[in-house]
Amino acid sequence: MTIFSSDNVTGACPEVMDAIVSANEGIAESYGNDKWSSKLQTKLSEIFETDVVVFPAVTGTASNALALSVLTPVFGKIYCHELSHINTDECGAPEFFSGGAKLVTMKSEDGKINTNDLSKNIRGTGNVHLSQPATVCMTQACETGTVYQLEEIQSIAETAHEHGLRVHMDGARFANAIASLNVSPAEMTWKSGIDVLSFGGTKNGCLTAEAVVFFKPELVGNFPYLHKRSGQLLSKMRFVSAQLEAYVSNDVWLRNARNANAMAKLLSEGLANFPDIKLAYPTQSNEVFVHLPSSAIDLLNAEEYNVSEDELDGKSVRFVTAWNTVSDDIDKLISTISNK
Amino acid sequence: MTIFSSDNVTGACPEVMDAIVSANEGIAESYGNDKWSSKLQTKLSEIFETDVVVFPAVTGTASNALALSVLTPVFGKIYCHELSHINTDECGAPEFFSGGAKLVTMKSEDGKINTNDLSKNIRGTGNVHLSQPATVCMTQACETGTVYQLEEIQSIAETAHEHGLRVHMDGARFANAIASLNVSPAEMTWKSGIDVLSFGGTKNGCLTAEAVVFFKPELVGNFPYLHKRSGQLLSKMRFVSAQLEAYVSNDVWLRNARNANAMAKLLSEGLANFPDIKLAYPTQSNEVFVHLPSSAIDLLNAEEYNVSEDELDGKSVRFVTAWNTVSDDIDKLISTISNK
Amino acid sequence: MTIFSSDNVTGACPEVMDAIVSANEGIAESYGNDKWSSKLQTKLSEIFETDVVVFPAVTGTASNALALSVLTPVFGKIYCHELSHINTDECGAPEFFSGGAKLVTMKSEDGKINTNDLSKNIRGTGNVHLSQPATVCMTQACETGTVYQLEEIQSIAETAHEHGLRVHMDGARFANAIASLNVSPAEMTWKSGIDVLSFGGTKNGCLTAEAVVFFKPELVGNFPYLHKRSGQLLSKMRFVSAQLEAYVSNDVWLRNARNANAMAKLLSEGLANFPDIKLAYPTQSNEVFVHLPSSAIDLLNAEEYNVSEDELDGKSVRFVTAWNTVSDDIDKLISTISNK
Amino acid sequence: MTIFSSDNVTGACPEVMDAIVSANEGIAESYGNDKWSSKLQTKLSEIFETDVVVFPAVTGTASNALALSVLTPVFGKIYCHELSHINTDECGAPEFFSGGAKLVTMKSEDGKINTNDLSKNIRGTGNVHLSQPATVCMTQACETGTVYQLEEIQSIAETAHEHGLRVHMDGARFANAIASLNVSPAEMTWKSGIDVLSFGGTKNGCLTAEAVVFFKPELVGNFPYLHKRSGQLLSKMRFVSAQLEAYVSNDVWLRNARNANAMAKLLSEGLANFPDIKLAYPTQSNEVFVHLPSSAIDLLNAEEYNVSEDELDGKSVRFVTAWNTVSDDIDKLISTISNK
Repeated sequence: MTIFSSDNVTGACPEVMDAIVSANEGIAESYGNDKWSSKLQTKLSEIFETDVVVFPAVTGTASNALALSVLTPVFGKIYCHELSHINTDECGAPEFFSGGAKLVTMKSEDGKINTNDLSKNIRGTGNVHLSQPATVCMTQACETGTVYQLEEIQSIAETAHEHGLRVHMDGARFANAIASLNVSPAEMTWKSGIDVLSFGGTKNGCLTAEAVVFFKPELVGNFPYLHKRSGQLLSKMRFVSAQLEAYVSNDVWLRNARNANAMAKLLSEGLANFPDIKLAYPTQSNEVFVHLPSSAIDLLNAEEYNVSEDELDGKSVRFVTAWNTVSDDIDKLISTISNK
Repeated sequence: MTIFSSDNVTGACPEVMDAIVSANEGIAESYGNDKWSSKLQTKLSEIFETDVVVFPAVTGTASNALALSVLTPVFGKIYCHELSHINTDECGAPEFFSGGAKLVTMKSEDGKINTNDLSKNIRGTGNVHLSQPATVCMTQACETGTVYQLEEIQSIAETAHEHGLRVHMDGARFANAIASLNVSPAEMTWKSGIDVLSFGGTKNGCLTAEAVVFFKPELVGNFPYLHKRSGQLLSKMRFVSAQLEAYVSNDVWLRNARNANAMAKLLSEGLANFPDIKLAYPTQSNEVFVHLPSSAIDLLNAEEYNVSEDELDGKSVRFVTAWNTVSDDIDKLISTISNK
Repeated sequence: MTIFSSDNVTGACPEVMDAIVSANEGIAESYGNDKWSSKLQTKLSEIFETDVVVFPAVTGTASNALALSVLTPVFGKIYCHELSHINTDECGAPEFFSGGAKLVTMKSEDGKINTNDLSKNIRGTGNVHLSQPATVCMTQACETGTVYQLEEIQSIAETAHEHGLRVHMDGARFANAIASLNVSPAEMTWKSGIDVLSFGGTKNGCLTAEAVVFFKPELVGNFPYLHKRSGQLLSKMRFVSAQLEAYVSNDVWLRNARNANAMAKLLSEGLANFPDIKLAYPTQSNEVFVHLPSSAIDLLNAEEYNVSEDELDGKSVRFVTAWNTVSDDIDKLISTISNK
Repeated sequence: MTIFSSDNVTGACPEVMDAIVSANEGIAESYGNDKWSSKLQTKLSEIFETDVVVFPAVTGTASNALALSVLTPVFGKIYCHELSHINTDECGAPEFFSGGAKLVTMKSEDGKINTNDLSKNIRGTGNVHLSQPATVCMTQACETGTVYQLEEIQSIAETAHEHGLRVHMDGARFANAIASLNVSPAEMTWKSGIDVLSFGGTKNGCLTAEAVVFFKPELVGNFPYLHKRSGQLLSKMRFVSAQLEAYVSNDVWLRNARNANAMAKLLSEGLANFPDIKLAYPTQSNEVFVHLPSSAIDLLNAEEYNVSEDELDGKSVRFVTAWNTVSDDIDKLISTISNK
């Protein structure tokens, strides 16, 4: 294990941990009928500049699969990138929660889906022999560390909506994308056509806190039952809500994300100085993907960085920075590689 | 809301909260590959006096549904009490996780299933037209606050095993039952024929921590994939494992359960002093069910105890004591009723 | 095997077989876009005196499970009799097709559900912890050979609709019930509150032909996709449609059912003449359930009637008459028993 | 509609229809416990030169989905061609029957999957984050009318087995492939590594008859329950078994397939004579795919051939010949195009 293997090797940031400790005083209504959960609803509505409906969850896998399951019929198609987390890293959770939806994957150089591919793949609406086009899922920031520009989101969402599809954003690294684009949460979501968001907190300073955020109340439908039935409605929900509330208060989430992004930038630039090291994807958030000579890999592993090229695409090594990464960590990594 | 509406209105006990705070230092491997998760495995193996395989989860609903899903084929039958949590309070999670299993319910006066009823209901093995007998689920302590005696567990498990079924225990209030029977965890589980246990921590002093405990490694099968696929494999699993480890260390769990049980006893005895109040079920753990005159209900609700007869069986009022209930709370409740 | 073990041991009646042979001429559009399927739609609309939407299927299990799946959400409850085919004889098909619905069973002496029990069992609407009341299923004629009177159907349907539930009729022996009550198909279905019908043909003279019949087009919803996805949309659908069309033409179905009912009556009356033989249920359609002395069972089995008390409720022997049963068959059976 | 739109626009061939009529005499045990079903088992064991276990079904969709569901865990991956029927034409049946398996699709010019692509795509075995490699599915003959050579089947099966996967063959046009390769059924299946076959009869002269054929009894597992639960266990199963038995007797199936293949060849050669018409795929069974100038398409549609380029890959027109196509039909089609 090493500090760069993932942003989920970190603990919670101080504000979040303090919120948990504070929430532990006294008794509180269970199953989300507590004041922290109410405040979270209000707080996120402020941050997104619209009335949102929020359902906390404890894993990104559950958050994504639940969101997709309310948007997609059992015979539906979910369009996503081949490298997306829902396709590669959730052991079939979207298929499970949706009751058998089909993930239709698209490839691209930059880890993002694009409007042309999407258009070509939306086929067969109304033909009973075919799984039916239902949902598009964008990961923001992408698994490859790249970030969709607002125009890209808008274009994809527009195409989806024209064909009667719904648009989901997997925001496991939502804050990193916001920090990267320097836009408002509203601009990057509903103003650009996102219908439902998986809002991630765990990777960026929470202990374990995610949320499904609906921008259109009419899409909520049976979600409360699906939420309960999946074992994601916590009896002591206040402890998840309290984390999220602290996380989005006082710009804690943006501060955390900015640090992670800055450290990734530092690392990326440091690596780019080596003539035989090439970035696999541009560094736009808190993940750095590089093609490393095997000598560099050996040196890193001798220092227990435990790197390999198998993480994502079988071709590049991944380094993930986090809310608490410091420049010394980067310097040490660069220095290790220098010895190759 | 009132302090007696459920044991899940409480927060975490100090030892558990301290463990969370301590676990927050430094980085740790994700997805359960951390030292807290390893220690939990060891610790629970000690407590159960056998090598157990443990998978943490965050809700009892998920823990139960996951355990049942690995024991029951998609066309299987799960035998349980009509009032059991898996039948009444999980919005179909066992059916969902198992891919369509059928819950066969049995009634009884004391909230427990019994061997005779079970025998009669196990039918049709090998007949392709019938859902196939697969699993028996006992809740210990029961939803009605009653507790299975060891002989009862053994008899049910024996009948189940004779017919080739597996035996699951829903231990959402496992500690309360242990404290009530004053037996060892081994005696109340695998030594009496339990194959898989849902081990509850949340209600009795954890923040949110449950676990599926396998007493027979050969039953684990595909569980790791089912666990991940259901969104219950937390990236920062250390925080659940740390809770459970602190919970079962130094008899914290038993101390908590003993207090809850003692307070229930105190309440039960206090209520029994009123000639017009009758217990609906004997008080054997931390739940008290009583038939209250409507004047008493009105008095309690005037003090915001928010009681009603709808909680479980539509016929009795439920009071649940917890790890942190104090005798003053009981006195105050009794005193309120005295005014009727 | 014996001729009385079930009505499905028979073949197809001449009119149905002729229709299959006729339908085999020339080519025809596949997947139901053929003239036989169109005519079936028209024909059934005439017979039911309203515009119905019809989807053929090949088994009663599929027909029931499909109908229930479009009426019931994944977290829904289906209310039915404990002895109903969907609960006892479909190996979990309703749970499978619905994605995990829960069957809530009710008992009664006559094999029918009743309004009081139903009312008591409809609980928890809007409570996310509980599987949600969704659908009521009546079997007409019942598994016990009894038949719901129109007022009974109306009362159950009214209760269901008041609570927002949908009403399904399992009509595997629909014709026998119509013949028994001597009412119109419209009266026994939509005029009495039935929303969706599983219309059976196989047992009463078809080769293999069932249909899901919608009385309210707005309930069809996603059914065409569910139909295809379940493998029930036949490429050469004309051969199922042709059977059903012939079956409901020229009163073939009623003639067949009347014969089966009359033969059951004959058998029932013949058995009632023995002082030590008691009917288990009144004979109202084409099934006769009797408590037989073991000497009678032995005599029957010596003649290879292969009877036992295990068929339905473990307490009575079942004899089923069919469209082609003749009085000689009955006489021979009675005569065999006479020797006891 | 036109005679070339699919082979499923045809009816049943005389031998099959005669068998249905013959099977209609007398009563017979239901649910496959009849003599026709027994004889089918024997007959297919002879034809495949090994003891096979056979389960009849009524659609190819059901047959495929059932076979895949017993080979693939709920979190499993099924490897198949992008154009395969299970991926494009079954409205998600494989996902439904399997409880959420993921179809991993591969592309190729000739409509066949190949060993290299398969090897590259088999990844992540044992990693709980990933859907698990489980099953490979080959369509023989392919959707594109091409046919796998024995060496190709062997190579794919070997790769699959080396990685612990199971091998399924979708044989909706199995007879056409046998006729094309002129090999024995044993050679094209279990001797080349096929574990389970969907054996198609409907398209090639049956009324509606398919079967799942197991070459390894140990793979049958829970199939009988899955079969029943899916509504594919017909009560009057004799009528499906009788079709299949007649179909494989006296080389009826091969005679039918040879005619269809020969007519496709005739058509293919006729079309190849036009300088501006190019075959999209080589004609190796009973499907012909061609790139047609729009003038030709217009002429054909003026004669109600109803052709379009949307059928399979959006780029070519499909013509399917059948067991009863005659050379006059081909001549007429060619002649129509000649006028362009």
